[in-house]
Amino acid sequence: MSLNPCDAAFTARLESLVPGVVSVADPRHLTELRAGAVGQAGALARPRSVDEVSALVAACSDARVGIVPWGGGTGLVQGQVMTGGVAPLLLSLERMTRVRMVWPTENVMICESGLTVLAAQKAARDHGRLYPLSLASEGSATIGGTMATNAGGVNVLRYGNARDLCLGMEAVLPNGSIWHGLKRLRKDNTGYDLRNLLAGAEGTLGIITACSLRLFPLPGREATALIEVASPAAALDLLAKTLDVFGNSVSAFELMSGVGLDFLAEKLPEIQQPFSPRPDWMVLIDIGLGQGGIDPEEGLARLYESAGLTSRALVSKSEADRQQFWRIRELIPEGNRRVGSVLSNDISIPLSLIPGFLYRAGTAIRALGPYRINAFGHLGDGNLHYNIFPPIGRKKEDHAQDKGKLTRLINDLVAEFDGSFSAEHGVGRVKVGELEHYGDPAKLVAMRAIKQALDPKGIMNPGAVLRG
Amino acid sequence: MSLNPCDAAFTARLESLVPGVVSVADPRHLTELRAGAVGQAGALARPRSVDEVSALVAACSDARVGIVPWGGGTGLVQGQVMTGGVAPLLLSLERMTRVRMVWPTENVMICESGLTVLAAQKAARDHGRLYPLSLASEGSATIGGTMATNAGGVNVLRYGNARDLCLGMEAVLPNGSIWHGLKRLRKDNTGYDLRNLLAGAEGTLGIITACSLRLFPLPGREATALIEVASPAAALDLLAKTLDVFGNSVSAFELMSGVGLDFLAEKLPEIQQPFSPRPDWMVLIDIGLGQGGIDPEEGLARLYESAGLTSRALVSKSEADRQQFWRIRELIPEGNRRVGSVLSNDISIPLSLIPGFLYRAGTAIRALGPYRINAFGHLGDGNLHYNIFPPIGRKKEDHAQDKGKLTRLINDLVAEFDGSFSAEHGVGRVKVGELEHYGDPAKLVAMRAIKQALDPKGIMNPGAVLRG
Repeated sequence: MSLNPCDAAFTARLESLVPGVVSVADPRHLTELRAGAVGQAGALARPRSVDEVSALVAACSDARVGIVPWGGGTGLVQGQVMTGGVAPLLLSLERMTRVRMVWPTENVMICESGLTVLAAQKAARDHGRLYPLSLASEGSATIGGTMATNAGGVNVLRYGNARDLCLGMEAVLPNGSIWHGLKRLRKDNTGYDLRNLLAGAEGTLGIITACSLRLFPLPGREATALIEVASPAAALDLLAKTLDVFGNSVSAFELMSGVGLDFLAEKLPEIQQPFSPRPDWMVLIDIGLGQGGIDPEEGLARLYESAGLTSRALVSKSEADRQQFWRIRELIPEGNRRVGSVLSNDISIPLSLIPGFLYRAGTAIRALGPYRINAFGHLGDGNLHYNIFPPIGRKKEDHAQDKGKLTRLINDLVAEFDGSFSAEHGVGRVKVGELEHYGDPAKLVAMRAIKQALDPKGIMNPGAVLRG
Repeated sequence: MSLNPCDAAFTARLESLVPGVVSVADPRHLTELRAGAVGQAGALARPRSVDEVSALVAACSDARVGIVPWGGGTGLVQGQVMTGGVAPLLLSLERMTRVRMVWPTENVMICESGLTVLAAQKAARDHGRLYPLSLASEGSATIGGTMATNAGGVNVLRYGNARDLCLGMEAVLPNGSIWHGLKRLRKDNTGYDLRNLLAGAEGTLGIITACSLRLFPLPGREATALIEVASPAAALDLLAKTLDVFGNSVSAFELMSGVGLDFLAEKLPEIQQPFSPRPDWMVLIDIGLGQGGIDPEEGLARLYESAGLTSRALVSKSEADRQQFWRIRELIPEGNRRVGSVLSNDISIPLSLIPGFLYRAGTAIRALGPYRINAFGHLGDGNLHYNIFPPIGRKKEDHAQDKGKLTRLINDLVAEFDGSFSAEHGVGRVKVGELEHYGDPAKLVAMRAIKQALDPKGIMNPGAVLRG
């Protein structure tokens, strides 16, 4: 059964049901930031409470009108942008930004979905606590959006993905009912895990309106090192040694390639690079320790020695150093953007297979042409952003026709290496075909059955994750 | 539509389909250990592979015969014991005990469901790694059973519940299809989280046949302290200070009450108690640190000083000390068993509300009679085993009629305090009514829809979690 458009009559009905929340959707809400894809919507609703969300969803269910939930608009797979189909209602959580409660001694805080990740971090810090989710888009990305997409980022190695930070949830289900699940318990075995089902469902099974989030003590003493390594294999060796020495005090272990550093030198020459000439590979290690015990800078220096390294290395001596080291890492995507990739991949590979994967993928791509490859990212999680760029002197537009071929090449190889074609960005609308192609058939049948069971009219984020 | 019995004709059909796996169910498989409830089954199947499990489930689906999955038989809520209804097939995973693969440098291992938790711990340790799930029944409890029930135990504070230790899963779904989901990735956002849906579903949505499990570095240096505290509130203060000092190196923080120690003195007088006279309340703190840095025993001594304590305290000086301290904690349930409780509760409460809960619950129970209360357990997780015993000189049998009244009293109070009536033991068949009474209505509707979608014939563990 097909959906009905969010037309003027339906918009007027919504306005009468929930006054003051419906308006025209503007380009800010309709444009996907990276790819520039422009979506459509019959109207924009900006509810102020879970009850208003419930009323809107119930009305859409009654009228069979699709809903596209909108967080911060920073998703990279068009989960928040619907470019085809019947005009939906765009439902933004941007007015639901309250920090409802913080319990610092319990290490728990309840935030509404429209709050940005940065604001959530700040609210935690104001209470002497850490909310550890951290990613490049944290100034715009929201609690609801990052939970709906199970976002990752740079601290997953230590603190887990978004879903691992969620103790409880309030959500509006596709029939308009409200699930009041804002528990703040570490253990609760009373029925199916709806929380983890909605986390990562990308808005296709309901709208998350608030989350009960895990907080952590602020790591009192932090240090960061930039260390040149000979190869990805050497980086993995160093990762193992780092985990042996620091255990669960390793906050991040990031890999950067010389190609990414070249891009920075080319496009952002004002940025001072840590090593000259630039290394082929480099890792960033971030350590956070509690009170007492070894000094983290001293610990990093000892790690370097005990690992038998002789390469170039920098250990932070101040917070300013740390920020400078991190800035390099955080600018890598900006350098990529300025060069312009033919294809960006967000993949994960079992750790020990990463060197083999990089060798095989590099060889296969070079056989197709002199592309440049920037592989970088969250090595500690086995998560690489494997991005492919046009040869020097060419533009990404010159290679638009290569995209399909390269996608298949990479994702076939990822499947062969037992990896994932979407580690942290999700499926959205861009990778629905990939999921159909590479997904486990029994799991896909189960997913479709769950979607049909919870959203029989197919109104929730139509066409995302599963074909409508 | 009702189920058909697993009768002689159907059993013969299973034997012809999958020769050598079907036999008569014996008392070992049919008796719930703690309560002694005796279940029924038309036959016992002990498949040797996921393909055999698949063939058995498909046959049961075709014939509409119920299946009760069986792990180690240590569940406490009759999830593995069906005392009423039409005779099902009991499907034990006890022949699927392989450690399929260990990747120590990746901190991952794949185990089949029938492997005991103890054997999994040992397999990890043989590779210099820790599988941290640890609970009293670990010698019998299995990987599959603990995952299906999302078991907890003593190390949840540091390492999470069973589901947090699971990176991937192989399972047979209710239609007999096999989900090949044994990924070993830390990040994989490709569709709905079927893994967390099956974990904690207690066998009602499918049969977990193997898991890809997270391992950790062995904490090189461990120490344990037993510290007398004045009250649960003082124990919570000490917990906060312990987490501030040791961060995520606190492996366990357990609370014991004087009543539990009295029971030990009465029923197991040969056990040497750490303090005499016995304290009213006592905590066990377990610390595990990596290489380098502060000595854990010294750290615990410093913690005691910096917390301004003057109470009696013991810090381990050897592994033998640690084992002796832990033995006291581990014998508390045995003492309880020998005294005989009127009612055992497995509850969780938001941390800061625990003292208030204990006061309110104690006052309400004492108003009903001179019951004895032993509240103990995993304080760091907010998870208490709140057990109620007959007055001195009476037996639990004398108070069988009090059970319903006490259950309602405790669980009403748990609900008022925003807690859970089942923190780590699950719902099984014992707490189905509690779930219906206290569960969120929107979530219950969603759970029933999911059950109907994945198991439309209702063959998977009928009557567990949800009423059949």
